Amino acid sequence: MQVTRALLSVSDKTGIVDFARELANLGVALLSTGGTYKLIKDNGIPVQEVADYTGFPEMMDGRVKTLHPKIHGGILGRRGTDDEVMTQHGIGRIDLVVVNLYPFAQTVAKPNCSLEDAIENIDIGGPTMVRSAAKNNAHVGIVVNSTDYSTVLAEIQATGGLSQNTRFDLAVKAFEHTAAYDGMIANYLGRLVTEPAQQFSRTFNSQFIKAQDLRYGENPHQKAAFYVEAQPKEASIATAKQLQGKELSYNNIADTDAALECVKSFVKPACVIVKHANPCGVAVSLDGIKAAYDLAYQTDTESAFGGIIAFNRELDAETAKAIVDRQFVEVIIAPKVSPEALAVTAAKQNVRVLECGQWSAERSQQLDYKRVNGGLLVQDLDIGMITEGDLKVVTKRAPTEAEIHDLIFAWKVAKFVKSNAIVYAKGRQTIGIGAGQMSRVNSARIAAIKAEHAGLQVQGAVMASDAFFPFRDGIDNAAKVGISCVIQPGGSMRDAEVIAAADEHGMAMVFTGMRHFRH
Amino acid sequence: MQVTRALLSVSDKTGIVDFARELANLGVALLSTGGTYKLIKDNGIPVQEVADYTGFPEMMDGRVKTLHPKIHGGILGRRGTDDEVMTQHGIGRIDLVVVNLYPFAQTVAKPNCSLEDAIENIDIGGPTMVRSAAKNNAHVGIVVNSTDYSTVLAEIQATGGLSQNTRFDLAVKAFEHTAAYDGMIANYLGRLVTEPAQQFSRTFNSQFIKAQDLRYGENPHQKAAFYVEAQPKEASIATAKQLQGKELSYNNIADTDAALECVKSFVKPACVIVKHANPCGVAVSLDGIKAAYDLAYQTDTESAFGGIIAFNRELDAETAKAIVDRQFVEVIIAPKVSPEALAVTAAKQNVRVLECGQWSAERSQQLDYKRVNGGLLVQDLDIGMITEGDLKVVTKRAPTEAEIHDLIFAWKVAKFVKSNAIVYAKGRQTIGIGAGQMSRVNSARIAAIKAEHAGLQVQGAVMASDAFFPFRDGIDNAAKVGISCVIQPGGSMRDAEVIAAADEHGMAMVFTGMRHFRH
Repeated sequence: MQVTRALLSVSDKTGIVDFARELANLGVALLSTGGTYKLIKDNGIPVQEVADYTGFPEMMDGRVKTLHPKIHGGILGRRGTDDEVMTQHGIGRIDLVVVNLYPFAQTVAKPNCSLEDAIENIDIGGPTMVRSAAKNNAHVGIVVNSTDYSTVLAEIQATGGLSQNTRFDLAVKAFEHTAAYDGMIANYLGRLVTEPAQQFSRTFNSQFIKAQDLRYGENPHQKAAFYVEAQPKEASIATAKQLQGKELSYNNIADTDAALECVKSFVKPACVIVKHANPCGVAVSLDGIKAAYDLAYQTDTESAFGGIIAFNRELDAETAKAIVDRQFVEVIIAPKVSPEALAVTAAKQNVRVLECGQWSAERSQQLDYKRVNGGLLVQDLDIGMITEGDLKVVTKRAPTEAEIHDLIFAWKVAKFVKSNAIVYAKGRQTIGIGAGQMSRVNSARIAAIKAEHAGLQVQGAVMASDAFFPFRDGIDNAAKVGISCVIQPGGSMRDAEVIAAADEHGMAMVFTGMRHFRH
Repeated sequence: MQVTRALLSVSDKTGIVDFARELANLGVALLSTGGTYKLIKDNGIPVQEVADYTGFPEMMDGRVKTLHPKIHGGILGRRGTDDEVMTQHGIGRIDLVVVNLYPFAQTVAKPNCSLEDAIENIDIGGPTMVRSAAKNNAHVGIVVNSTDYSTVLAEIQATGGLSQNTRFDLAVKAFEHTAAYDGMIANYLGRLVTEPAQQFSRTFNSQFIKAQDLRYGENPHQKAAFYVEAQPKEASIATAKQLQGKELSYNNIADTDAALECVKSFVKPACVIVKHANPCGVAVSLDGIKAAYDLAYQTDTESAFGGIIAFNRELDAETAKAIVDRQFVEVIIAPKVSPEALAVTAAKQNVRVLECGQWSAERSQQLDYKRVNGGLLVQDLDIGMITEGDLKVVTKRAPTEAEIHDLIFAWKVAKFVKSNAIVYAKGRQTIGIGAGQMSRVNSARIAAIKAEHAGLQVQGAVMASDAFFPFRDGIDNAAKVGISCVIQPGGSMRDAEVIAAADEHGMAMVFTGMRHFRH
């Protein structure tokens, strides 16, 4: 395949002038339209306008420019098969198509973008050329991404054309581009088919990009891959760079996400240890992340073995040393990892060390999915969070300042514990976590067992419950083990009973008005 | 908007002849191509071929037929704005476009479909007409689905044209159609960019169709919707019809899926009760589903309150009565519900009763997803299952026939319990379920606590563990409470110790070689 003629029409103008110039220097005839044509021409590069080439005027404010047999015949014609009919109709080969589309998502994200604006911005000619060229990848190259210009150019410079492998790879990118484009349009328009417009469109279209194939899935007999968004909205497992260690497994990625998202809840230095999708130890310490790690580890030393550890501060050498000296760890993740810390972990080459970058205080709006057989539940990610001002004291006794710190700490942890979740905490250290039970009473029982097992004193600790207590027994049992203060959503039919129980035991209790089920 | 000229070119020929005939009867001029043209003409309906209309021959084996200004100008021209230029260039209005695309997924599912066949089947002209007409929905109607013919025709018959609401709705369907189409292509080709071809394509493109908006998500501050596949592969929550009761909630759908998928594991009459994403009671009974329900309920009467109940047989009146008389239930689901059973549940109008249809014994290959911040983990659904023949007896004592039944029963349940999962069972009844713990020992402890709480005898029961025992303590503890027989994957470094422990206690133990983590 030789490149003799190229058609260029791009929304993203990055690098297009240089690319056009080099193509022209190689003797490639250039066709172009609209703004791309003007830009190339203004840079003194020989280029012909499509309307001039087809002999058919651009019309309808550009709605019909390239939708012409001379263009599409030139792109779609099979070299060796259609040569005669092409000659007969004056259709010249177009060997390279360089087209990309203005992201529809950006169009509709503009303030004041009306439905009419949005629709006017839907490109018809562009996707058609992209798809034509991609279909005829046996003979034609299609470039939809400016980051591919240099390699494409280098190959043409070296060989005069593009190899089948390159053309196929570019063709796949082309269909990925048009799939994403029409998916965005369907998502946007699909919200407007009813009045008023709805948050959830009539169809849910998504595209993710493969980051890596995984050795296997949740279990060895399941195949798996990890995909990421084209543009992740915030520092996360999707943006994390692995600095050392074995390849991440499916369960590593899921658990690292849980640990990292939990540790993001805290502003002060914090550590979260996750095992089997649940935090098994969490702590905040003003003395830094080493102290936070020590406290988090104490909660459940047994479960911490082989756990995932996340920090909200740069991983330093002292903390790294404390971890690798003390325990078997699968993954350590932090916004940043110091070179000294990495020198420490280097001694344990299996340990996966990840750096995800700094996140901003403001959490981004995202969608969460839960797969069911034959379907998908889609919901807003649970980024709801309460502050001290949201707490409603419902008991005679109000919590002390220290208790308030512990209540909010425990509440933030409970949000990341599988439901039903009960968290005991004291001095911003978890001292017992009851996770994943079908009854709240059992979760509380487990939290108490865990605290006892760890040799941590429940006396004077606070308790967080991810959902309301349906009966007073949860409070009575908590009082028995020494809980002094409770945080929970409230909202039970029997709130009055539950409050009375807390008052009887001299406990303080606050309602958040917000539930945090997580299954 | 008046319909004066229509262009018809469809892959799915259902109803097209009648539709064309009625349009022709209304005086609409018809344009068509290829097989659609022939079919319409052969039925004696006046129709003009596109090549004849454009004056440009169909060429390249049909690759370039409709990619012509006379077609796309006719579709894209803005009535009132572009009339003059249209007249000037002899471009007549095309007011209705009826085009649908051969599902690419079906093309590539054909045995022996080569990459060349697949690419040859990628439609260029079709999607372009669909997209052109959808963009210009202010003036043009686009029909991509044969099920819309009758309403479209009725509206044209009644008013001579289509309302803006109808045209907009059809336009959204059109982009949904092209988004799905290019998504399929990107998924297929994206597997082939590396050699050998991979299971997971370079991008992961999916489209789901909204079944219903939900009142809220996992928690009241999260908005949510339930989407289903265009063609669910088997009877599931996605195919379920709600026969009575309150609207399904997000958590209802998730839990009903868990209950139903678990009960599908059993061939004999079975009942699964789910609470907070975990089975809290499961039983199989040769005496039918009423007996199975009674046994499942016994496991954990506290958690069964407000649970989701699934059966693998038609729900009969007796079983329905047993449930509603005894307990508060959120959802009952079964392949079928007898009219008599529905008459019983009618007394409790809040209870959601669902009928999902009969599933086949062969489970379908599906993909499971787990959302993480900024990304998506994609894996094969865990449909792995062992039978008696797969069991490897590793202890001196082999399990008895009855024990084998219980082992396999417990194993099937453990697969649906959140990890770490420990299931105690006897007589194909769960007698204690330890779910969602960060350490296996704690899950076993919970199973024992549950059995005690339910007043069920552990003596002589079997134990299933979803993953191997890392140490012998799990076996020692099980022996203490009376477990006689164990099923687990095996594969620990300390298997020898674990087997020795079982032998010491006179227990039988089998290895499955398959793990079932579920988080």
